[in-house]
Amino acid sequence: MKRYEQFAEQIAGLIRSGMLAPGEKVPSVRHASRTYGVSPSTVFQAYYLLEDRGLIQARARSGYFVRELARHPLAEPETGAAPPPTSEVDVSELVFSVLGSLKDPHTVPFGSAFPSPQLFPLPRLARSMAHALRDMPAHAVIADMTAGNPDLRRQIALRYMVAGVRLPLEELVITNGAMEALNLCLQTVTQPGDLVAIEAPAFYASLQVLERLKLKAVEIPVHPREGIDLGVLGERLASLPIKACWFMSNLQNPIGASLSEAKKAELYQLLQRHQVPLIEDDVYAELHYGAQPPKPVKSLDQEGLVMHCGSFSKSLAPGYRVGWVAGGRYTEQIGRLKLMTTISPSVPAQAAIADYLQHGGYDRHLRKLRIALETQQAAMLASAARHFPADTRVTRPSGGYFLWFEFPEQVDSLQLFQLALAQGISLAPGPIFSATRRFRHCARLNHGHPWDSTSERAMEILGRILASF
Amino acid sequence: MKRYEQFAEQIAGLIRSGMLAPGEKVPSVRHASRTYGVSPSTVFQAYYLLEDRGLIQARARSGYFVRELARHPLAEPETGAAPPPTSEVDVSELVFSVLGSLKDPHTVPFGSAFPSPQLFPLPRLARSMAHALRDMPAHAVIADMTAGNPDLRRQIALRYMVAGVRLPLEELVITNGAMEALNLCLQTVTQPGDLVAIEAPAFYASLQVLERLKLKAVEIPVHPREGIDLGVLGERLASLPIKACWFMSNLQNPIGASLSEAKKAELYQLLQRHQVPLIEDDVYAELHYGAQPPKPVKSLDQEGLVMHCGSFSKSLAPGYRVGWVAGGRYTEQIGRLKLMTTISPSVPAQAAIADYLQHGGYDRHLRKLRIALETQQAAMLASAARHFPADTRVTRPSGGYFLWFEFPEQVDSLQLFQLALAQGISLAPGPIFSATRRFRHCARLNHGHPWDSTSERAMEILGRILASF
Repeated sequence: MKRYEQFAEQIAGLIRSGMLAPGEKVPSVRHASRTYGVSPSTVFQAYYLLEDRGLIQARARSGYFVRELARHPLAEPETGAAPPPTSEVDVSELVFSVLGSLKDPHTVPFGSAFPSPQLFPLPRLARSMAHALRDMPAHAVIADMTAGNPDLRRQIALRYMVAGVRLPLEELVITNGAMEALNLCLQTVTQPGDLVAIEAPAFYASLQVLERLKLKAVEIPVHPREGIDLGVLGERLASLPIKACWFMSNLQNPIGASLSEAKKAELYQLLQRHQVPLIEDDVYAELHYGAQPPKPVKSLDQEGLVMHCGSFSKSLAPGYRVGWVAGGRYTEQIGRLKLMTTISPSVPAQAAIADYLQHGGYDRHLRKLRIALETQQAAMLASAARHFPADTRVTRPSGGYFLWFEFPEQVDSLQLFQLALAQGISLAPGPIFSATRRFRHCARLNHGHPWDSTSERAMEILGRILASF
Repeated sequence: MKRYEQFAEQIAGLIRSGMLAPGEKVPSVRHASRTYGVSPSTVFQAYYLLEDRGLIQARARSGYFVRELARHPLAEPETGAAPPPTSEVDVSELVFSVLGSLKDPHTVPFGSAFPSPQLFPLPRLARSMAHALRDMPAHAVIADMTAGNPDLRRQIALRYMVAGVRLPLEELVITNGAMEALNLCLQTVTQPGDLVAIEAPAFYASLQVLERLKLKAVEIPVHPREGIDLGVLGERLASLPIKACWFMSNLQNPIGASLSEAKKAELYQLLQRHQVPLIEDDVYAELHYGAQPPKPVKSLDQEGLVMHCGSFSKSLAPGYRVGWVAGGRYTEQIGRLKLMTTISPSVPAQAAIADYLQHGGYDRHLRKLRIALETQQAAMLASAARHFPADTRVTRPSGGYFLWFEFPEQVDSLQLFQLALAQGISLAPGPIFSATRRFRHCARLNHGHPWDSTSERAMEILGRILASF
């Protein structure tokens, strides 16, 4: 990272933490240069960058100010009432009916699960693919199926190492995206009828998987900023025969919360005490806006209790379907289960990603991607404040491309979904994120697409529908 | 197909059916030219082709003769005693221990599940990949995940149509190879504890899947040439609550049998009468040696009872992991289950295969591949007759790349497997193909690799080990 990028991160950190409040003046170039010991041109470059990212704005002849993210900045959602201790999951039909309606390419994709494909280096990946296939020995198309592409395994292990997690290469199982990894993990440690702790709200696919495997959900409330409620989790682990936890410790989908390092340590102690494995779904970790990647709970794992699932689908190569799990003590079982179900992810796709990781400039791409997502987040937040009812609440995650909106009580988000879809706008209504169809007045909106006048108009229309409730 | 290829097929058909017996003279060029109304040069070209394929051989100044496939041609295996009506499956550990030992690339790969990668047009596929990725619109990397590559779907439907099977495009679900398709089908129509009819011997992966899903096997004996015993199947269907049949109607793995069209019709009537769905694993259909592809049971399906699973892994693109299922009345459930488990096969791999099917010359490649496999089959059969005990029995499938050997009673194929492996030769021992670990004196050998002096020496060593029992 260049010096001005580092300095921009410092200032961004002050803004995110609230040390520099919206509307407040940021240090003048001269002042900053003296205080932080950087050249004035570095400060200028950093401020231009922060302006691009929507964090600060210039006022004529007055210098830079922390952007009023909105006319009326919206408040943070509240953690809802505690869910019932355990529940049968019955939401899959609803999820499919919502997902099925997202297919029209002309719909404004606020309901989508993916960021815009324009944000990914697809042409560069295609070159990596050509390169990799040219060099691949013929026997690899068969050999790499069972073992996975060896270069890819090394590159993934290397990224763990840079992030401070030492992993033996043998612990990695390459999978068809994180979705397969999560399915394999869950099947490895549960039997039909078992209890699994999940978040509330939770990623809808995890609810579908629980329903499919006839597992019961133990919903643990998630605070919009601080993440899962470890108090509730501790009680549930002590009183119920929970067989596995399935959590997103970083940039949780849909709410965007990340656990602090202290909470991660506390979570791991709970797991250890009760000897309950954690399926750590960490697919958004690379999309953090801050300078340092958040560490996974896996980094604390000394007993092999954590199955850490990652993927390139959200950060580099959607559609390539390459993910992995660092399976801890469950690695062999997970690998065997994979051989019995899909055998292997596509060998060319693995080879292309391995080549890209070695030669493509992944970290450079990630920096650009994060800035784009953060800029778009600011745009959606500002737009929501302009158009949505003033008592709307919204999260401000420090990464990713989802905002979680809590609308006034009278809003029914399933109706909202239908009304918006009729106007060519999709969104993900709250109830699909709950085993028990809660969060009726909530919705997840995707800001992973470049912000333009269509997006703005779509927010305006949503605002009008919201006002009509 | 060129005229001389057609004529060669006619003669090959006479040889395969036994109308022209080993050692018998084939019609002279002049005679054949007159009888079949083809030019002498066409006959010559056809005979050269048949000579290459190991079906006939020239004798100096005497013309061409049907090749004595071996010094002592080996007899056909016998259908074994009927298996018990139902059985718990307990073979997965054994399969994994056998498969795990196949990884050494220096082992003679008679135990492998794949033909040699040298037989596939990998460089041409790489060009198709480059071409497809250059032309692919960015949004396709996401859109093609749920729906599958539209060109690929069309190409697959077209191949069905050419084979006389009309399929609505909507009936196709693109999967991570046939293995995923088979898993999805089985999960769609069964619950843990259910009974599933399978073949004996059966493809070992099907046994592993049954074991994993806690399904019970109803083993139906397979005749080496005529395929499953429909008498036994009829009785079982009448007396047991069988929830699904999982059969390979063409070139069954491991035994190589194909059901005649009459038997296929009879099978379908049984399914209809009992309203039991068929999971038709048809991954070897394209590897038939005859002129016409065998028709699947699916071609008779008017009620949507048949889930027909295919793949490009054995015929075109190993490691790409692209297969499909034509799911009949179960299509929607299968598609949803896929979305919940792996979402999608790799989008670039789908696009590359779609491009190849349109521009790559698939049928030309298949003709070459079939000739290579048939030639290698003749070589392995001849070698077995030279080196194996004279009372060894062996199949002569009309396609594919597996031979099923029935050794003298005293041979223990698990011991044989260990002894051979110590000499650097792999094979697939009989018990991994049985829910109840039967077929102890049988083994499957792969002739999918170009035959050379190493193969010949390996057969000689196997012969010596066999003699030592």
